[in-house]
Amino acid sequence: MAGKFITFEGPEGSGKTSVIKAVRDFLVSEGYDIVTTREPGGTKIAEDIRDIILSKENTEMNAHTEALLYAASRSQHFTEVVVPALEKGQIVICDRFIDSSLAYQGYARNLGIDEVFEINRFGIGNKLPDVTIFIDVPPKVGLKRVFDNTGRKVDRLDLESVEFHEKVYQGYLLLADKFKDRFVVVDGTNDVETVVEDTIQILKTYL
Amino acid sequence: MAGKFITFEGPEGSGKTSVIKAVRDFLVSEGYDIVTTREPGGTKIAEDIRDIILSKENTEMNAHTEALLYAASRSQHFTEVVVPALEKGQIVICDRFIDSSLAYQGYARNLGIDEVFEINRFGIGNKLPDVTIFIDVPPKVGLKRVFDNTGRKVDRLDLESVEFHEKVYQGYLLLADKFKDRFVVVDGTNDVETVVEDTIQILKTYL
Repeated sequence: MAGKFITFEGPEGSGKTSVIKAVRDFLVSEGYDIVTTREPGGTKIAEDIRDIILSKENTEMNAHTEALLYAASRSQHFTEVVVPALEKGQIVICDRFIDSSLAYQGYARNLGIDEVFEINRFGIGNKLPDVTIFIDVPPKVGLKRVFDNTGRKVDRLDLESVEFHEKVYQGYLLLADKFKDRFVVVDGTNDVETVVEDTIQILKTYL
Repeated sequence: MAGKFITFEGPEGSGKTSVIKAVRDFLVSEGYDIVTTREPGGTKIAEDIRDIILSKENTEMNAHTEALLYAASRSQHFTEVVVPALEKGQIVICDRFIDSSLAYQGYARNLGIDEVFEINRFGIGNKLPDVTIFIDVPPKVGLKRVFDNTGRKVDRLDLESVEFHEKVYQGYLLLADKFKDRFVVVDGTNDVETVVEDTIQILKTYL
């Protein structure tokens, strides 16, 4: 496929969304043909699937069903949105992709990174991101940002939640090592301008 | 798990549903504790997933998304309906299960039997049926029954449809060979009383 497929990953409070917006604006100003997307990306089928996952009525859902539904939603978004743009030669920037499932469900929820990888590969085929920017923010820093933004006190975080986000973060570090050919780690503890500048420098080597 | 897990498979027009009903009635009359079910089996989440698969609005759905959704629906029905019954020591008879996905999607839709097997194993874990009754009816016989029942003429079948059902049938024959430890083939071209009697004789050796 003619285009480039860039994904962004990071734990809660990594500032990923702001970084993506600034990076996109810069690349557009440089004349690149950019598509930014995130799952379910406005595709009806992928949205219908997300509604089932996120429905408060569906508390009986088992973790494996949930992982299969994420893989199904991803497959549909990928074939309807990502692949056509790549075939047109566009640069696709996707906010979270397969690695979120690997870190959150495969590692933190103990379903197995390899097992979750396989069901996602079934859905998306052999195409993986050309480069994955991992915004590295330790969970205590990221969660403090989230709680500062919402005005909620950090000390009200229950232990399970902190431990879960710690596990997600450990999962991402494992992935950065496992997929070192496409993962690039950016220090996300710096101010956002620095993170954006670092990310742009990295992406320039791929574009 | 204390119970026994029996699945029935067969192409269109195999008479599977009538056979299951008669077999169930016989086993109940013999004092067995039987649960009959079929996916999505009345579980809300599995039904919600099926609604997405079967919605006429979702013609854009790719075959891999569909297979992942079937695996998700199966996982939920399995953990909510089948496993609790088996744990109580009941005999669960399920009308179609993993092998339908392997024959229809893995083989006839060319997604790969092994690939579809893996995503389903992710959903249901290591438990496979204790015995799978395959009601063997060649597709031309089965389709003739379906068309005779609905009053539609056989010659109005388009070629693609016949070829597809032929492929499903070939898929089942492959599965009967691949899983010979649990597949038992019953000649479904006989009259229904004979098919039921043959099935009961087989099941008696497992119960």
